[in-house]
Amino acid sequence: MAKYSVIGHRVHNVDGPEKITGSGKYTFDITLPNMLYGKVLRSPFPHAKILKIDTSKAEKLVGVKKVLTGKDTIGFKQGIWRRFPELCDEEILCRDRVRYIGDPVACVAAIDEDVAEQALDLIDVEYEELPAIFDPMDAIKEDAIQIHEGVELNINVNRHIEWGDVDEAFKKCDVIREDQFRCSSQHHCCMETHCAVASYDYSNKLTVWTSTQAAYYVQGLLAGMLGMREGDIRVIKPHTGGGFGGKFETDSAQFCAALLSQKLYRPVKIVLSREEEFTATKRRTPMYYNIKLGATKDGKLLAKEVRVLTEGGAYTGMGATALYLTGFFSSFPYKYANYRYDGYRAYTNTAPTSAQRGFGAPQSVFTGEQQIDMIAEDLGIDPIEIRRINGMTEGYEVPGQAYIQSCGLHQCLDKMEAYVKERKKVMPANHGIGVSAYGFMSGGIFNWFDTPYAFSSAVVRIAIDGKVDLYTGACDIGQGSNTTLAMITAEELGVRLEDIRVHSADTATCPPDLGAWGSRETLMNGNACKMAAADAKRQLLEFAQAKLHPNIVYDLDIKDRWIHLVDRPERGISYFDIVKEAIRGKDGEAIMGRGHYTPHRKGMISPAYSFGVQAAEVSVDPDTGRVKLEAITTAHESGTVINPVGIEGQLEGAASMAAGYAICEDQPMDNGKILNPSLGVDYKMLRTLDMPDTPILEIDTYEPEGPFGAKEAGEGLTNPTAGAIGNAVYDACGVRIKTLPITPEKVFKALQEKKAKGKGGKK
Amino acid sequence: MAKYSVIGHRVHNVDGPEKITGSGKYTFDITLPNMLYGKVLRSPFPHAKILKIDTSKAEKLVGVKKVLTGKDTIGFKQGIWRRFPELCDEEILCRDRVRYIGDPVACVAAIDEDVAEQALDLIDVEYEELPAIFDPMDAIKEDAIQIHEGVELNINVNRHIEWGDVDEAFKKCDVIREDQFRCSSQHHCCMETHCAVASYDYSNKLTVWTSTQAAYYVQGLLAGMLGMREGDIRVIKPHTGGGFGGKFETDSAQFCAALLSQKLYRPVKIVLSREEEFTATKRRTPMYYNIKLGATKDGKLLAKEVRVLTEGGAYTGMGATALYLTGFFSSFPYKYANYRYDGYRAYTNTAPTSAQRGFGAPQSVFTGEQQIDMIAEDLGIDPIEIRRINGMTEGYEVPGQAYIQSCGLHQCLDKMEAYVKERKKVMPANHGIGVSAYGFMSGGIFNWFDTPYAFSSAVVRIAIDGKVDLYTGACDIGQGSNTTLAMITAEELGVRLEDIRVHSADTATCPPDLGAWGSRETLMNGNACKMAAADAKRQLLEFAQAKLHPNIVYDLDIKDRWIHLVDRPERGISYFDIVKEAIRGKDGEAIMGRGHYTPHRKGMISPAYSFGVQAAEVSVDPDTGRVKLEAITTAHESGTVINPVGIEGQLEGAASMAAGYAICEDQPMDNGKILNPSLGVDYKMLRTLDMPDTPILEIDTYEPEGPFGAKEAGEGLTNPTAGAIGNAVYDACGVRIKTLPITPEKVFKALQEKKAKGKGGKK
Repeated sequence: MAKYSVIGHRVHNVDGPEKITGSGKYTFDITLPNMLYGKVLRSPFPHAKILKIDTSKAEKLVGVKKVLTGKDTIGFKQGIWRRFPELCDEEILCRDRVRYIGDPVACVAAIDEDVAEQALDLIDVEYEELPAIFDPMDAIKEDAIQIHEGVELNINVNRHIEWGDVDEAFKKCDVIREDQFRCSSQHHCCMETHCAVASYDYSNKLTVWTSTQAAYYVQGLLAGMLGMREGDIRVIKPHTGGGFGGKFETDSAQFCAALLSQKLYRPVKIVLSREEEFTATKRRTPMYYNIKLGATKDGKLLAKEVRVLTEGGAYTGMGATALYLTGFFSSFPYKYANYRYDGYRAYTNTAPTSAQRGFGAPQSVFTGEQQIDMIAEDLGIDPIEIRRINGMTEGYEVPGQAYIQSCGLHQCLDKMEAYVKERKKVMPANHGIGVSAYGFMSGGIFNWFDTPYAFSSAVVRIAIDGKVDLYTGACDIGQGSNTTLAMITAEELGVRLEDIRVHSADTATCPPDLGAWGSRETLMNGNACKMAAADAKRQLLEFAQAKLHPNIVYDLDIKDRWIHLVDRPERGISYFDIVKEAIRGKDGEAIMGRGHYTPHRKGMISPAYSFGVQAAEVSVDPDTGRVKLEAITTAHESGTVINPVGIEGQLEGAASMAAGYAICEDQPMDNGKILNPSLGVDYKMLRTLDMPDTPILEIDTYEPEGPFGAKEAGEGLTNPTAGAIGNAVYDACGVRIKTLPITPEKVFKALQEKKAKGKGGKK
Repeated sequence: MAKYSVIGHRVHNVDGPEKITGSGKYTFDITLPNMLYGKVLRSPFPHAKILKIDTSKAEKLVGVKKVLTGKDTIGFKQGIWRRFPELCDEEILCRDRVRYIGDPVACVAAIDEDVAEQALDLIDVEYEELPAIFDPMDAIKEDAIQIHEGVELNINVNRHIEWGDVDEAFKKCDVIREDQFRCSSQHHCCMETHCAVASYDYSNKLTVWTSTQAAYYVQGLLAGMLGMREGDIRVIKPHTGGGFGGKFETDSAQFCAALLSQKLYRPVKIVLSREEEFTATKRRTPMYYNIKLGATKDGKLLAKEVRVLTEGGAYTGMGATALYLTGFFSSFPYKYANYRYDGYRAYTNTAPTSAQRGFGAPQSVFTGEQQIDMIAEDLGIDPIEIRRINGMTEGYEVPGQAYIQSCGLHQCLDKMEAYVKERKKVMPANHGIGVSAYGFMSGGIFNWFDTPYAFSSAVVRIAIDGKVDLYTGACDIGQGSNTTLAMITAEELGVRLEDIRVHSADTATCPPDLGAWGSRETLMNGNACKMAAADAKRQLLEFAQAKLHPNIVYDLDIKDRWIHLVDRPERGISYFDIVKEAIRGKDGEAIMGRGHYTPHRKGMISPAYSFGVQAAEVSVDPDTGRVKLEAITTAHESGTVINPVGIEGQLEGAASMAAGYAICEDQPMDNGKILNPSLGVDYKMLRTLDMPDTPILEIDTYEPEGPFGAKEAGEGLTNPTAGAIGNAVYDACGVRIKTLPITPEKVFKALQEKKAKGKGGKK
């Protein structure tokens, strides 16, 4: 028998037919009888006191059913870092003060969106403007005003990571570099904007359909903000049009729809406009980086010291985690014996910054991987060779932080080295190739939400016809977790993929799961599903054992609906027959298996890490500075591949988002006002035709902690691209751009400066 | 501590707030994007061959999306008696032959109901009329045509029950009577007509929202009829506006909506009109009764012989079960030593007859209880006394049929005797009082559906905030099972009713249950819920035991959220605290308990029986024959009362339906055409103002097989009324009406005849 009958096969997405035919339901499609439509009034000022809100004119408008302000809330300050109350700083409906342009101050429910929109214009808010801070460098000045009372120097969070003796180590270095970088903002640009339908009924129970990465978080956070018990709130995640880190905190659509519905006992739908999506939801964290890196002349990286200041925007949210992770991943994927990180997150009067695909790691790779190329050049060592000298290996322990079990970095370097060598032979003028190495986590261990539940749980139920219901809290936001988890369950249970029916992300019927972030579902929920399937299988095997009565030292297993002796696969019995007998044997109860997963003894960050190396090939137009992407080639090791089609999709999506981050996406502001809140022409993403080829170099590894040996294959792929492009630009034209995005203007200007100084690049 | 903290208390229905405010969703309220509306074309002939169906004109009508006929089905003949294929005789979309006026021949899906209705008119069906049979007496004649090929004498089913030596016993009787009775038709008249929304999606999965008494049956039956696996079909029962026996088979709304949706990959809604409801759905079985009854002069009933012929209508359905039950309950509630029943169900060309509240028992009580009064008069014995002499008692075994555990019949007789005595003292002229005794089952043991699952199952899940999710397949059709089951769960687990959230009757998320028929949910699903709650409680008590470390001989229990030593209730710990600890102790998995129930060693009919005596007081207008209801007084013993408000509601509803059956409801026909298919003025139900007082005489019993000692309190209450009214009419004016309904015409005519014969009645 082949090793696996389901996993590793090229299957279509289990939700695919519904999605491509348009019959699948998204939150936007949820329409309930008697439903109202909500809109949110937002602050036009970056920083102001609210003196008075007069809603009387709006309330009188025909068709308006309710107008609510912060005074109608219980005033609970929320935050996803529930474990640390001081980091829960966001009211959603502001009572006394607004802190960014877009901060919600009132909401309206009306018979349609037009009326609700009109009503917003009729709400009179009297503000007293306050001085505003937009740059974190200004925020931490002694004389800056406090954006949140009592927060000294506007430092929202700081993070310190250190091991070894950094100062002593620098003394032993032959070369030391110190470089500054700046990473820009970026928006998730989900196809589906934030939206929710909330229905509070006369039994005082609330049901919320919403586009979210974590139905369970929304349930818990809404409970706090509405003063309800979690169990009285049901959150259902329909099909979801993308999350990318922007949808696992409670947002204004969810909270305002729920609050309006609670007051009205009628369903309320709120769908954010694209402009609101850009200006009033969270975004990737911009960061100032200062890095000092020291090496010996033989290429050993002895010490690294990283100082980071991030633009926090008005509130904490997941930005606190991004601050930690950018520090942790700044040591990746190398064995620094001496490392120090100091990160500061400053409040500013801008839209809050938070998680976005990569979660702080793309910033550390953009900065770190360029600097490694620079120090390699200083030392005269090949860029891949210096990565080989210092790269992590299996069994490495990041001091006090993490245990690396599987690690295929060196295989990736070997394959990429051969690839780059071949490419360089045929590369035309003005072309360059740059590499970047990286690692990423398979879900996070840090429990900021302070959940008392296992991180992932699953229930498997086998019905009389052999059909398997899989109940999981995992959130398929388009990344394909429904498919991956169904494949894991089918493989473990020994049935076909079509035998599985996935029920996911409904807090009333599915066991809790922390949701889709940090690339956690495959490993964490996959382990829970595998355990649940194994639990159900064990029950079937008991009956099969009794029926087949083999020598008791023989092992039984199930594969492709055939229960058999592992060593004599032809001796067996149909899965369907044993299911019927087992249910009868259990007095008619369906077979039910339960599984859960929480990482234990895996350090502080993640139970497993993926690694990879990416090469970006670009051409630079010397007359305009325009960078054109020619190819993005990736060697990514993610352990056993559950769903090859899924990984290909992840790679293409990640390359597009990360390359956009590298060369064109940004959110310029004027006095806190985002200037390009539109996908029309203003906010520049890469379109299909802008995308180069994205070949994959296959790497085979096995992660002992993962289900069937699988680990991360999601966000990690977003990390390397900006750094690789930066190195490729330098390779192409000899200029080094240390701020994102790498625009034609910056390259052109740098080329002019280089020409003026008369310093030749490599070409 | 009081014995129970939840059960026995007067609580409002858990679904009450949603229902009374109109926010609860019924199937009719389900509206899906892209949804179409369906209509069914029905036979205008009672019996005919289908020669040809031309749908081309209908298909061309703008707005029509699909027209289907029997040729588009897989031709599977369905029936709820899945265990006996010969009883599965119904195609729903007829291919070759129609057998009653209303038999479905085609269905249409269109953009709205009007267009669908117009399309029906454009379908050309060429019929060849066949001779039709309307009366079962004609159906069993030698020369009658066969309504179903190969079914001799049109006998669909026959049933024989016998014990003792009936012929020998009659020889020993001092008095023998032989009487004929006829029981009429009646319609369920649910406020909500049959309806379904079916949505077949591109993953080839079908979801059906429907008004049903048994979501699980609909799932299984649709699977057979559509050629699908059960697991690919999800049936969800929203709030339901009544069932009364009319909604546990697959109906044309469900099947046609599902079939249309399967062909179109679009949601289809079908709601039957009131006229269709009356003419083309099933109804109470009309029966011809012949009973021979013998007694000794001291009032001992020695032998009973019952022969019944029922009007089957065109198909089998649940009518086969009604035939069995009317035979079984014709021996109730008496200890006949010698008993013989022969029942025959004849096919006729009328709307199929089936189950309706009481399930054959109201017929046996109308006939049997009048005859007992007659033989008592013949013997000169008081009607209550003769019932006392022969009435069943605890521990009685119905030979070969049933084991009676608890039985409070004699308490009921005692209480009723005192009541009647008091009433008689003050009763005016032309008033009469009649009693009737009865018994009923608490769910059926016969497994006609051939389910492989436990008859009832439940899952209880406790979340971190102490909230309890109860998952049950039980179907709340308005009778209040959601409330009763929540109360049982809360009591067993030791929490408050408000801590329970019920999830019921969704085949994808709730474990299977056979549904709401035969008064089974309280005892059967109640036992499953109690077992599930006990399973969950046991897990909590393990942690409490470890924490409190009492002397290990002490018992722990939970009551009102307080975990305590049973004998030292003040020593304990909060339920909420232990829930948190237990979930943590189980590595973060929610506490889950499972329970199921299937009767074992309880004979062939039911695990438990309720008993009662009812007195009807009427006045008869001697000039018009009009019977006016003055009071319906009931002594019903249902074991421990879980929900007193629920029983009161059941009694009022049952009295209204049963009294309507007794005095005004009927479905007269002309050549198979029902003449009064409207609630406007044609079909006469009792209105609120027609209803008399319905006092309850409380009886306290305990059923060992039931949850907390509970048993049936649903349909049983429908049984006695027609018989009691018959006896009351005789008591009032001396005429005995042996056919239902007891209309003014019949009474007037009988009074005239009595006057003509010069024979005086009692008054």
